[in-house]
Amino acid sequence: MQCEGWRSVQAPGLLLWLCASWGLVQGSRVLIMPVDGSHWLSLQLLVAELAHRGHDLLVLVPETSILIGDSDLYRTEHFPVPYTQNELSSSLQWMTQGVFHRTFPLMDIVVSVRGLLNFTDMQVRGCAALLYNEALMERLKQENFQMLLTDPFLPCGTIISAALQLPAVYFLRGMPCGLDVLAMQCPAPPSYVPRYKIGSSDHMGFAYRLHNFVMVGVELLLCQVMYRSFDELATRYLERDVTYRELLGHGVLWLLRYDFTLEYPRPVMPNMIFIGGINCGKSLALAPDIEDFVEGSGKHGIVVFTLGSLVRSMPVEKASIFFKAFSQIPQRVLWRYTGDVPEKVPENVKLMKWLPQNDLLGHPKTRAFITHGGTHGIYEGICHGVPMVMVPLFGDQDDNVHRMANRGVGVILNIHELTVPMLVDALNTVINNSSYKERMMKLSAVHNDRPIEPLNLAVFWTEFVMRHKGAGHLRPAAHDLNWFQYHSLDVIVFLLAVMTIVVTTAIKCCTFCLHRCYRKSQKWKEE
Amino acid sequence: MQCEGWRSVQAPGLLLWLCASWGLVQGSRVLIMPVDGSHWLSLQLLVAELAHRGHDLLVLVPETSILIGDSDLYRTEHFPVPYTQNELSSSLQWMTQGVFHRTFPLMDIVVSVRGLLNFTDMQVRGCAALLYNEALMERLKQENFQMLLTDPFLPCGTIISAALQLPAVYFLRGMPCGLDVLAMQCPAPPSYVPRYKIGSSDHMGFAYRLHNFVMVGVELLLCQVMYRSFDELATRYLERDVTYRELLGHGVLWLLRYDFTLEYPRPVMPNMIFIGGINCGKSLALAPDIEDFVEGSGKHGIVVFTLGSLVRSMPVEKASIFFKAFSQIPQRVLWRYTGDVPEKVPENVKLMKWLPQNDLLGHPKTRAFITHGGTHGIYEGICHGVPMVMVPLFGDQDDNVHRMANRGVGVILNIHELTVPMLVDALNTVINNSSYKERMMKLSAVHNDRPIEPLNLAVFWTEFVMRHKGAGHLRPAAHDLNWFQYHSLDVIVFLLAVMTIVVTTAIKCCTFCLHRCYRKSQKWKEE
Repeated sequence: MQCEGWRSVQAPGLLLWLCASWGLVQGSRVLIMPVDGSHWLSLQLLVAELAHRGHDLLVLVPETSILIGDSDLYRTEHFPVPYTQNELSSSLQWMTQGVFHRTFPLMDIVVSVRGLLNFTDMQVRGCAALLYNEALMERLKQENFQMLLTDPFLPCGTIISAALQLPAVYFLRGMPCGLDVLAMQCPAPPSYVPRYKIGSSDHMGFAYRLHNFVMVGVELLLCQVMYRSFDELATRYLERDVTYRELLGHGVLWLLRYDFTLEYPRPVMPNMIFIGGINCGKSLALAPDIEDFVEGSGKHGIVVFTLGSLVRSMPVEKASIFFKAFSQIPQRVLWRYTGDVPEKVPENVKLMKWLPQNDLLGHPKTRAFITHGGTHGIYEGICHGVPMVMVPLFGDQDDNVHRMANRGVGVILNIHELTVPMLVDALNTVINNSSYKERMMKLSAVHNDRPIEPLNLAVFWTEFVMRHKGAGHLRPAAHDLNWFQYHSLDVIVFLLAVMTIVVTTAIKCCTFCLHRCYRKSQKWKEE
Repeated sequence: MQCEGWRSVQAPGLLLWLCASWGLVQGSRVLIMPVDGSHWLSLQLLVAELAHRGHDLLVLVPETSILIGDSDLYRTEHFPVPYTQNELSSSLQWMTQGVFHRTFPLMDIVVSVRGLLNFTDMQVRGCAALLYNEALMERLKQENFQMLLTDPFLPCGTIISAALQLPAVYFLRGMPCGLDVLAMQCPAPPSYVPRYKIGSSDHMGFAYRLHNFVMVGVELLLCQVMYRSFDELATRYLERDVTYRELLGHGVLWLLRYDFTLEYPRPVMPNMIFIGGINCGKSLALAPDIEDFVEGSGKHGIVVFTLGSLVRSMPVEKASIFFKAFSQIPQRVLWRYTGDVPEKVPENVKLMKWLPQNDLLGHPKTRAFITHGGTHGIYEGICHGVPMVMVPLFGDQDDNVHRMANRGVGVILNIHELTVPMLVDALNTVINNSSYKERMMKLSAVHNDRPIEPLNLAVFWTEFVMRHKGAGHLRPAAHDLNWFQYHSLDVIVFLLAVMTIVVTTAIKCCTFCLHRCYRKSQKWKEE
């Protein structure tokens, strides 16, 4: 039995006990229910590392999938889903639909929610197909997994963990309308914890605090709408009246893909583990043709440009703004571009269907990063210390880029108002105004300076759950209170009632006494 | 320049930057303002480790001191204080005075607060003597320290950090009336975060929640009384109207000597670093005479008994209960005892003026630990997996032992109601009922299973503050709000006012319309 721990155990009396647990853990069976698309890209890193450490992993893969595939590192179980590849692709289009078209203020939230509902409704149907696949579920039961690892963006993993009574470890960036924070029972005072798309830092004036306070209510309402199908599926399958939020609350640990170089500091719970930057690896050597192009940039260096994997094509008129702007800067540009290539591409621009983003950002010639502000890109930028020009498109990108701009490490551009001079100016600012690079290097140093690497931390806590069959010591008692009790409202009502009775009685007594005194003095006077 | 980090830096571009910082850090000047007594014992561990890592440390030592002395590891600066060794000793007696005498319920809090005030008032005078020692303060200023490390139980370190504008790192177990939690702006919902001596776990029924809610108010009042002299000194010395709580809020990091195997899980802040168990070292070999005594216990093993360093002597009638009980158990007992030795000490009892507590608890023959429930002892017990019989005496001990009893790893005895059968029964229970040992082994395994040792973690974060000249990214914006804003009360009042105006206007409009309609219909009828 191999018994190499993370640490030398201080108490030798415990060594045998821990070794035994370790032995159990090093062949542990883990069930993994991923979410497709970019969510899988970082979960995959943890899955691969767990496999390297000798765990037996089974990944549940919908037969219609975008990125999740078979691997030598883990077993897969493919399950049929009631939608085709085309339907899946078109449902994913909600995220990119309209990102280049201006909408009224607040309408973008409605559009986002509608799109998200389209996507999640389809996924919920896929999940139902899995849950009601009795043969498969029975096989899963027979496997006697030690735990389940899932991204709770979709409900399937959480419902399976409840059905199979497996401790669940969540891996995520965050959830729409802050359901993760609600489910964790984590306080989030609206006076300094900015909500979705509030457009302010954590230092808010009265107007922003008012806006933020109202947004708390809006988010609670949105949660009701957005997770209704999740609640229905959970209630139907588990045959008990339960909400998705309640189920989520049983999660043992939350591995969160952020830290406080991106997010603003705020209250957290002991079972929240911060693994921001887990996707940022050591940058590897570039392919020879790319390396030649990069090295050819001379002292001016290069700009890396990508709007993420979901944005397949950009309208010609928008693309032309970028092409024109790039022709006016001395840097060379590497652009992940999948749209129509115009006849005349500036010489300093290299268009590619896929970019080795992390390797390019880690290259010493890189001067700036044009990004849509997805968490993956933002963290690769922070990790390698590259100032950013940020063009947020949808989802949490708006909030991400505001946080970066607030730290003075990048400039935000509005895709709808973008002009050539604006883009040129933004690039020149982040490249030539040394304060951007300096602040970014400081932020990067803070981010990279940690006692344990995010991937190792994620593995440690995942294995911790297996070693100890959960992490009950980190589960707050708040989960066993309803909201009325949690906020001590019953206590306050009781105290107010007691005070009212005491005060009323006291007043009545005084009145009675005064009345009697008055009558007595009247009598005396009359006598 | 030596450049060995905690980790391999992912981004090679940053290596030079970090190395340079590291070079700076590895000769950093740290000013240390300790608190005397047992507080110093664990801070000393961090101080020694920082010294081993090449930092230049200056420890401020009052000329009248109990435990803080000179060392080859650090420089010391002795400063005169306006009290003698005898006065100091007698002021410390407040903690042990009356612990063997029964008081009325709630009176113990009054006695504790009065005693604490006696002690802290003397210490505040000592602190004033340091602060107004102009020559010394000027010397400290000239030293250009990178940071200050202090235990905020007393105000001196915090006031010096404000005066010299040094980032402060705090090292503590907690503060009376929860001032640390208030100063950190850390939420602590009274519905499940038990307050001082509440006598309940984090799962509270209505009565306990009511009690706890009232205690929040009591603690706020107590804070006003207990820290008045701290506030006055800070205001007088810094020549600005400031409270100790406000000053504390500027602390960069809080190294807290607990974790969630002792404390109940609750909201925390990102700048709280949990180093519970930092005092628990690897157990070393015992001195030959002690080893012989321990080994001679055979299959029954030993019981380790100490009531801490502050309890100098126990009344004869109490001691006789322990002596009689020990004569009735098959285990051998090692007792840290400084009182009068009776004529007939049972053969299985070894009395010692000082116990190698950690080494004994780590010995395989140890079956139980009789403790007063101080944090040091509790953690050594957890660390080595030894079930406990707990006799809380004062301070936070009552809360510590309730947490342990709640986890089923020990039995609580009331010192005032103690009898021989009770003690024998408690010892037999924790030794012979295997569930205590099993639960303690599990708790111990959870406590010892961590990605990085508490001492290394404390060193990492202390050096982090030096490398980055603070940890601004962990400072919540809550510090810049007053309590009215923090709780969004201004926003709520505003919204209520708007709602009132809207509703009143709507009602008035409706009344007006109805009135007009009514008059019109009256007119028609009349016509």
